[in-house]
Amino acid sequence: MVFDAKTLTYDERGLIPVITQDHLSGEILMFAWMNAEAVARTLETGAVTYWSRSRQAFWIKGETSGHVQELVEMRVDCDRDCLLVLAKQTGPACHTNRRSCFYTAIRDGVEVEIMAPEN
Amino acid sequence: MVFDAKTLTYDERGLIPVITQDHLSGEILMFAWMNAEAVARTLETGAVTYWSRSRQAFWIKGETSGHVQELVEMRVDCDRDCLLVLAKQTGPACHTNRRSCFYTAIRDGVEVEIMAPEN
Repeated sequence: MVFDAKTLTYDERGLIPVITQDHLSGEILMFAWMNAEAVARTLETGAVTYWSRSRQAFWIKGETSGHVQELVEMRVDCDRDCLLVLAKQTGPACHTNRRSCFYTAIRDGVEVEIMAPEN
Repeated sequence: MVFDAKTLTYDERGLIPVITQDHLSGEILMFAWMNAEAVARTLETGAVTYWSRSRQAFWIKGETSGHVQELVEMRVDCDRDCLLVLAKQTGPACHTNRRSCFYTAIRDGVEVEIMAPEN
């Protein structure tokens, strides 16, 4: 079946959640949102493009920082209401300069930082 | 810092998105939601417990099917508005009996099923 971004299920804001994973290591890099146009642009350009809820604008990841994400593969879940993006990440994915946004673990009831910012 | 589920950022429904990943293979198993009480119950019991939006009830994963998720580690993202759950999955995670809910890939503009249901 030919994929059409319009056939996905979006929330009341017109957004779908996106999990971004390093295509080689399997590490979860970040979590963000796309609208139908961002999904289409990501597939067309190969540059992972989110919808920024705070700026209410398209967000080509790394456009400013250079920490771009090159699309390797997009996957859709069973309910068609979540996307998994496998990407080739240049530099850190997190705005804190860490490889991943998920750098805080909960261990024995305590928050532990498990990843340092990159230089 | 001692972790308190109330310090996370929840949406207007009181929910936070949760990515669940196989703790060994790194495979993304599913995507669902928790409220603060589900986060606390998951940490207390070690049985991954979501909030079902359709049933408006706590959803102890696998309680009916036996396809339980044993919590290995919970992680919080930089914005404290998304959780990553590393879990030990018994049986398939998806209600379609597939290992993962993300069994549809988009390749050359076409939807391709990349994972078969388990027996």
